[in-house]
Amino acid sequence: MSPPGLERELERRGREVGRYLESHIRLDEPTLQGASLHLLHAGGKRMRPALLLLAAEACGGSPRRLLPAAAAVELVHTFTLIHDDIMDQDTLRRGVPTVHTRYGLPAAILAGDTRYSKAFELLARSRAPSSRLAASSLRLAETCVEICEGQALDMAYENHHRVTEAHYIEMVRRKTASLIAASASLGGLLAGATPATVARLDACGTAMGIGFQISDDILGLTTTEKTLGKRRGNDLVRGKKTLVWLHATRRGFKPPRGDRASIERAIRQLENLGSIGYARQRAEEYRHRARRALAPLLGSRAKSLLLEFADYSVRRGH
Amino acid sequence: MSPPGLERELERRGREVGRYLESHIRLDEPTLQGASLHLLHAGGKRMRPALLLLAAEACGGSPRRLLPAAAAVELVHTFTLIHDDIMDQDTLRRGVPTVHTRYGLPAAILAGDTRYSKAFELLARSRAPSSRLAASSLRLAETCVEICEGQALDMAYENHHRVTEAHYIEMVRRKTASLIAASASLGGLLAGATPATVARLDACGTAMGIGFQISDDILGLTTTEKTLGKRRGNDLVRGKKTLVWLHATRRGFKPPRGDRASIERAIRQLENLGSIGYARQRAEEYRHRARRALAPLLGSRAKSLLLEFADYSVRRGH
Repeated sequence: MSPPGLERELERRGREVGRYLESHIRLDEPTLQGASLHLLHAGGKRMRPALLLLAAEACGGSPRRLLPAAAAVELVHTFTLIHDDIMDQDTLRRGVPTVHTRYGLPAAILAGDTRYSKAFELLARSRAPSSRLAASSLRLAETCVEICEGQALDMAYENHHRVTEAHYIEMVRRKTASLIAASASLGGLLAGATPATVARLDACGTAMGIGFQISDDILGLTTTEKTLGKRRGNDLVRGKKTLVWLHATRRGFKPPRGDRASIERAIRQLENLGSIGYARQRAEEYRHRARRALAPLLGSRAKSLLLEFADYSVRRGH
Repeated sequence: MSPPGLERELERRGREVGRYLESHIRLDEPTLQGASLHLLHAGGKRMRPALLLLAAEACGGSPRRLLPAAAAVELVHTFTLIHDDIMDQDTLRRGVPTVHTRYGLPAAILAGDTRYSKAFELLARSRAPSSRLAASSLRLAETCVEICEGQALDMAYENHHRVTEAHYIEMVRRKTASLIAASASLGGLLAGATPATVARLDACGTAMGIGFQISDDILGLTTTEKTLGKRRGNDLVRGKKTLVWLHATRRGFKPPRGDRASIERAIRQLENLGSIGYARQRAEEYRHRARRALAPLLGSRAKSLLLEFADYSVRRGH
């Protein structure tokens, strides 16, 4: 759980972004409209847009002007979820059927593409000087290339045997952390922060993102399926190279078969080997790194919330 | 065939854009790199980047500075081809296996997404004042939303029976013409043309694009499979609502079964019903409309080439 203050603040910003998105995704074709709104209605924490708005506030920017940019990073995030679910053949997401399961493959590909296009459109509609808009568009595009490369590495690593921790961290940096880093730094960039401050927000977002993913991998093993909204231990069966996996296989751990009993046995084994504890400790290092990156920023309510956010993204319970 | 002068000019610009793309698509993951370069090596006419460069030249802009933008519209084009081929389950494109046939579904989805991201990255790297870059990014994003809507309509119409000519034209305007219109107007926009001139280039591109698609539909019926690089009469079997189809079904035409003899018989029937001739005449109207839109532009070698280009896009032999 996030601390009550932070939780309330994130929820408020998340709701505003959700409302903005609902009123700005109007597509002419009913199936495409349905598929595009599907995940939006299924909720989600809207962590990235909230981060963008908080970062902007910490740099003296007006969150109201940057709602379109905040909506843009949420659209990029859900675009990657829709396409990743196809590539990974996942059938459940946030407790509801994935878009391709519900609407079919063509509609899901297209709903992803449309959200992605809308993201760049909304970003370009943010109220900021055009020099900042141009820089933001470049930044978001570079981020999207990194996300694609990260997903390609993630898929490739499932069948590779010589994946190291350094490989894993670099994959996660691209696949997950780059959009979180982009959210933080776009907030600063669009609010007119100095390059040094933008770089700090970037470093903070990168560390938050890596810590977030490590802890997400752990939660996929330790949380109930009801809370997860998908099958527990899925990554183990699939051979996903997480930090837990890499630590454990060096100690003789063998991947389980797909049945529930084997998975539960494997999870207990991971606890006994200390692999889950090891991953927790690495996540903590990234939490500290995220906090340190923010240290030079001027004190403000938004800065305090960002620091709490760094804790929350790594230590959250689900 | 295009007139020799125009052909040489298009080829030269196409080659430059191809070289630029080859040296700017460097991806870290080998499968993704292969899948991303696959269609690039298979050629293609690079009509859209050549149009962007010619439009810029007609407005006094420097084509060298706009190579990244020209590469961007080509990337958007091939991104849509890769994803459309998945959605339409096509196995051949430009005479070679489609990306998903060669590299599998996940790599094809991701290669498309990567090209799309690279497109926005390259556009943002064009050498132009940031106000023009910001406007260009918005324009490209809006165009991409339209392309997605057009593809959704195209797929939906396959199973609808009450599609009219107006529906068809609007679908084609979004799916095909919007990127051709964007290519022409981005050339003007980035070169610093007045809004009135950009609007003319836009109108020219829209008409060229609709005429191009109508004639593409015709060529899919009248050209040899060797030249097409894919199966002749495919659209008929699939029930694609082309102008030819709409004209013919009003006159009692029934779609053929999938065997070669039925397809050939159906094509002869379409000729006898005058449906192919009718579509040719509509394409000619759009060719005239494209030429008229350019009339107010200052005379120049680039303007003459644009006028020839409008003819070529509608009257080409393959």
